[in-house]
Amino acid sequence: MATSLQNPSAPRVGLVIVTHGGSGECLLAAAQGLVGSIDGAVAVSVTLEDSFEVQVSRIEGACARVDAGAGLVILADVHGSSPFRASLAMLDGTRAIEIVCGVNLPMLIKLATVDRQGLPPIEIAEILKEVGKRSIRLGSELTGKLTLSREERH
Amino acid sequence: MATSLQNPSAPRVGLVIVTHGGSGECLLAAAQGLVGSIDGAVAVSVTLEDSFEVQVSRIEGACARVDAGAGLVILADVHGSSPFRASLAMLDGTRAIEIVCGVNLPMLIKLATVDRQGLPPIEIAEILKEVGKRSIRLGSELTGKLTLSREERH
Repeated sequence: MATSLQNPSAPRVGLVIVTHGGSGECLLAAAQGLVGSIDGAVAVSVTLEDSFEVQVSRIEGACARVDAGAGLVILADVHGSSPFRASLAMLDGTRAIEIVCGVNLPMLIKLATVDRQGLPPIEIAEILKEVGKRSIRLGSELTGKLTLSREERH
Repeated sequence: MATSLQNPSAPRVGLVIVTHGGSGECLLAAAQGLVGSIDGAVAVSVTLEDSFEVQVSRIEGACARVDAGAGLVILADVHGSSPFRASLAMLDGTRAIEIVCGVNLPMLIKLATVDRQGLPPIEIAEILKEVGKRSIRLGSELTGKLTLSREERH
């Protein structure tokens, strides 16, 4: 926080959302519809037909577009997949990068208030991870309203 | 599990994915590309321009389409939003329904192996919640490969 207060033009950590198909673009658009513009963020849509080299090249291009010198956070849809492994290829030691797997909308909404000018990628990634995990809840937990199925179990 | 083994034609718990914009459709298509067809699942795309009544009506229509008599699980993108509140309107006591918030791709992938003919909606929802939470991890945790930023912190 201190850094950005001292220097409002400090570079911002870039964001790359890597998904199978277009969900990254949809998630980014949805988050921006809810919380306003999210600068320095780009979505990469990968298909199962893309070779691994093509995936790496597209993710590399996206990283270059949003790299302002403060490092990057890559949000991937699922670990163990080829787009995730292609994202790992970005960890070549040339930039500060952390990857968060299991991207969901609450993580992107959180980006509106995370200090991307003051915090390094690893700390932003840890915040997004916690927000993402906390956001996964059951309707009955959130409302206290028991569903029919839960009532029927007893 | 026992139920479906005893009766392979037992009704299957229906799935409705409710998101701001088209991410639900993209997630469902991505999951099906990875694990094969997911029967009895439908995505509802809601926009900020849709009135609450329109949202309720569209979610209701989707629920009716996939309701085979075994109840429903609704996967919503973020709790507290109007599509989430519109989903809550489905908890009117007429069906066994549970809602899971914070939908991500690993939850949908899990649907390929969850016993939707043998388990009630609340148990399926609890499984999806745990899978979704566990899937949110950092690249450095999964690979043991420290990122530049983490190295630099010390």
